[in-house]
Amino acid sequence: YDDAAAEAASARQMELTKPPGSLGRLEDLAVFLAGWQGRARPEIGKAQALVFAGNHGVCAQGVNPFPQEVTAQMVANFEHGGAAINQLCALNGAALSVVALNLDRPTEDVTQAPAMTEAETLDAMRRGGAAVDPTADVLILGEMGIGNSTIAAALAHAVFGGAARDWVGRGTGSDTPAIAHKAEVVARAVALHERAKGLQILAALGGREQAAICGAVIAARLARIPVLLDGFICTAAVAPLHAARPALLDHCLIGHASAEPGHRGMTEAMGKRPILDLGMALGEGSGAALALGVLRGALACHNGMATFAEAGVSDG
Amino acid sequence: YDDAAAEAASARQMELTKPPGSLGRLEDLAVFLAGWQGRARPEIGKAQALVFAGNHGVCAQGVNPFPQEVTAQMVANFEHGGAAINQLCALNGAALSVVALNLDRPTEDVTQAPAMTEAETLDAMRRGGAAVDPTADVLILGEMGIGNSTIAAALAHAVFGGAARDWVGRGTGSDTPAIAHKAEVVARAVALHERAKGLQILAALGGREQAAICGAVIAARLARIPVLLDGFICTAAVAPLHAARPALLDHCLIGHASAEPGHRGMTEAMGKRPILDLGMALGEGSGAALALGVLRGALACHNGMATFAEAGVSDG
Repeated sequence: YDDAAAEAASARQMELTKPPGSLGRLEDLAVFLAGWQGRARPEIGKAQALVFAGNHGVCAQGVNPFPQEVTAQMVANFEHGGAAINQLCALNGAALSVVALNLDRPTEDVTQAPAMTEAETLDAMRRGGAAVDPTADVLILGEMGIGNSTIAAALAHAVFGGAARDWVGRGTGSDTPAIAHKAEVVARAVALHERAKGLQILAALGGREQAAICGAVIAARLARIPVLLDGFICTAAVAPLHAARPALLDHCLIGHASAEPGHRGMTEAMGKRPILDLGMALGEGSGAALALGVLRGALACHNGMATFAEAGVSDG
Repeated sequence: YDDAAAEAASARQMELTKPPGSLGRLEDLAVFLAGWQGRARPEIGKAQALVFAGNHGVCAQGVNPFPQEVTAQMVANFEHGGAAINQLCALNGAALSVVALNLDRPTEDVTQAPAMTEAETLDAMRRGGAAVDPTADVLILGEMGIGNSTIAAALAHAVFGGAARDWVGRGTGSDTPAIAHKAEVVARAVALHERAKGLQILAALGGREQAAICGAVIAARLARIPVLLDGFICTAAVAPLHAARPALLDHCLIGHASAEPGHRGMTEAMGKRPILDLGMALGEGSGAALALGVLRGALACHNGMATFAEAGVSDG
């Protein structure tokens, strides 16, 4: 993080033709991007969106009404341009890539065994990191995986504590009895792996797309690329990084406050406020891709507005 | 409002490749636009943004630290492309026009007399309505006028009751003693004109840009154009229409929840939930122009996504 660039950006915000602070969060976002990009006039020339997909052995516990085949079907839908994330990336100018991670080989059922071996976890992290374009100006992360709202709840419960039901919601369409069943599955999984700490939680309870997201977040940090995480499942995916060291997520924004009830608790625990709150609960990176428009708005104002001196406007 | 178009849009939302409801507010916005535009596949080919500017006699009461000349200076800044609204309209594809309303002739001081005569009010309403492009697909409304956060508070207080201080905030930069002074000015103005009802409130306590906004809202309704109102001052500007008949605002969305504390009470009283909440308090239409990006996102998904049948995805 480049303090000098951030300070120069803050100083510029004070000179633009508006009352100080009147652009609210747009001002904070411009300064944040300045600090991470290391330039007082940050830009989003190249926005990259990565959607990682994986399958989950926990589906054997009957936690999701959709069959696991839907993960591959939705990956094909992404590849053919038919999903929400395709439309939102096209609208806001992000280049989308989809990385399907061994869909024919689901992780282990986390109520019975660790989801992944250490080697499998590191391999997925490496593939996530390798997918990051080091020349991108901002990175959008999303996911797809039938059953992964259960995995997300388990990661959140293991990292942030509380009760299993605090982190469980309807996911892709569970009703009330199904939600109670999901909570019971999450409680059993977390109890089985209670000795896992920090990044061990990722191997014990996560999935390949969660590990890939963690790898991409780390790769983005090394390349000083600010990250827009999507909603509930993306936030839970990086919870093991938060458990290892909260500062690992300092370059990450959260695009959207999910309708999943567990999201608020996670974002508060991480000290992050989502940019949008539109009742979405889709995943795929859709909330982050929509929030990219707000980032572009912040920078359009930051870079394009006249100063009081330039415009000949009295500054009070 | 075309119920058949709205129902067809709702039916399409159920067929798109996502769990039902998972796009949250984006789904509601697509259906809203379908109903008002009268087509199951609404579009935003032409987005018009109108910013109305006026000056206010209430500035004689010392309610604003900026001189009234700033209104004309900011109009020049809009015309030269240097303000926040210029950048946000360019980003989200809206054609911006600025209409300055007799800036050299401020309204009367509302603590002493009605702001405008009936003839002046109707003239400003007519000019607002005449500025609306009847072929636009969506209309964004904004305002500029030194002193008009005091006028907005007076309109809100007259229409929605409560105490003057409930509706008064820092505006373009008042500190705590100045806010107390503003509240006292608002209380005196509203007490002086307590017999005004409905649209009479607009003449008694409003300003030319407020009347123009009301005229534009009515013209948009006649042309079945959905409207994106900006924040605190725009919402207060149409409060007299709400007082006359709440359904007059059924085609209006509110773009942004203002940082001005009085905005929440107004939007709740009107039964409207702002689309964005980013701590902005600038006016100019900036919050509405940013929210246009969300509307475009809603329609990109609505019109561009594949259905379950088209994509060969199992729908559970």
